[in-house]
Amino acid sequence: MQINSLEQLIKTISKLPGLGPKSAKRIALSLIQNKDEMVKLSSLLDQTVAEIKICKICANIDVSNPCAICMDDKRDGSVLCVVENIADLWAIEKSKTYKGTYHVLGGTLSAIEGKTPQSLNINNIQDRVTVHSIQEVIIATNSTLEGQTTGHYIAKLLEPLGVKMSRLASGIPIGAELDYIDDGTLALALKLRHKF
Amino acid sequence: MQINSLEQLIKTISKLPGLGPKSAKRIALSLIQNKDEMVKLSSLLDQTVAEIKICKICANIDVSNPCAICMDDKRDGSVLCVVENIADLWAIEKSKTYKGTYHVLGGTLSAIEGKTPQSLNINNIQDRVTVHSIQEVIIATNSTLEGQTTGHYIAKLLEPLGVKMSRLASGIPIGAELDYIDDGTLALALKLRHKF
Repeated sequence: MQINSLEQLIKTISKLPGLGPKSAKRIALSLIQNKDEMVKLSSLLDQTVAEIKICKICANIDVSNPCAICMDDKRDGSVLCVVENIADLWAIEKSKTYKGTYHVLGGTLSAIEGKTPQSLNINNIQDRVTVHSIQEVIIATNSTLEGQTTGHYIAKLLEPLGVKMSRLASGIPIGAELDYIDDGTLALALKLRHKF
Repeated sequence: MQINSLEQLIKTISKLPGLGPKSAKRIALSLIQNKDEMVKLSSLLDQTVAEIKICKICANIDVSNPCAICMDDKRDGSVLCVVENIADLWAIEKSKTYKGTYHVLGGTLSAIEGKTPQSLNINNIQDRVTVHSIQEVIIATNSTLEGQTTGHYIAKLLEPLGVKMSRLASGIPIGAELDYIDDGTLALALKLRHKF
């Protein structure tokens, strides 16, 4: 293969999350075999680059800045939900049960990956709580080690402000069979059992 | 999510081979968080669209038409290797043992997917064998049901021309453990055993 642009295209695609050299080659070849799709993808990328803005309040992405959620009067501005990334925000929005505002961290604290509170969108949570007179902060970081560590860090940070803090419930997911649930979750679900 | 371009981008990415809505969302979000990468990918797509040509002789892709392989005087023009797609051609080229020319079919015959000899690059193999006075045709379609069916079809097609035909050897792959090889391959390898 002596085609520079194609080689570079495969290399660029292979760096996308979840893809490797083999799947990138497959994707590039399928694109080549359908030039219309390739042109469409390219123009969509340009369009998205031009259209997307990062909300200066919550770091959500949208076509407007501040984003539609931050600008929505019908939402409860006194509740703030802290999430790791935009995909988590979308997941919570899809559940249609939350009507407060968000704060997107852009990742979790990680010494290995060099993610410090400075490189994440963490330090301005304090300002937000004070300026927007937030009554409750829901810390909805993922239930992983990194997520929980980050959550604890934020809880410590907000403690002096005396704001109400909560976290998502831990337990057995709906539809799950106990037999397939890991020991840790099962132990936690037993410990946190509530009245029938 | 109310961002049209992003929604369309995710939809387009999710149609690429091996990807679904979840992985497409993940890829799109990672692209948004790195606008430089997004612009680079878009321009690479445009560049590749402009640069890629399909060889009129063998249906390989290259920056020139006919492709570099077809134009290479040092290659043996009397041997023709029939492959299903460009990825297979690349795989054989990578092995650095073949110095003949290629014929890319663009898929396999499939009644379900509506792939007939007309929709594949099959019918002009006969012309190629006659015009380019091919001495040997190596049918290197995949060792799948569809690949073998297509191979048999081509063999039947070329039979009247009296050209020498061969296929890739079947057997145990190098480094494989017999315990993990499927019964069919093992039976075939026993049947096709050769002198030590």
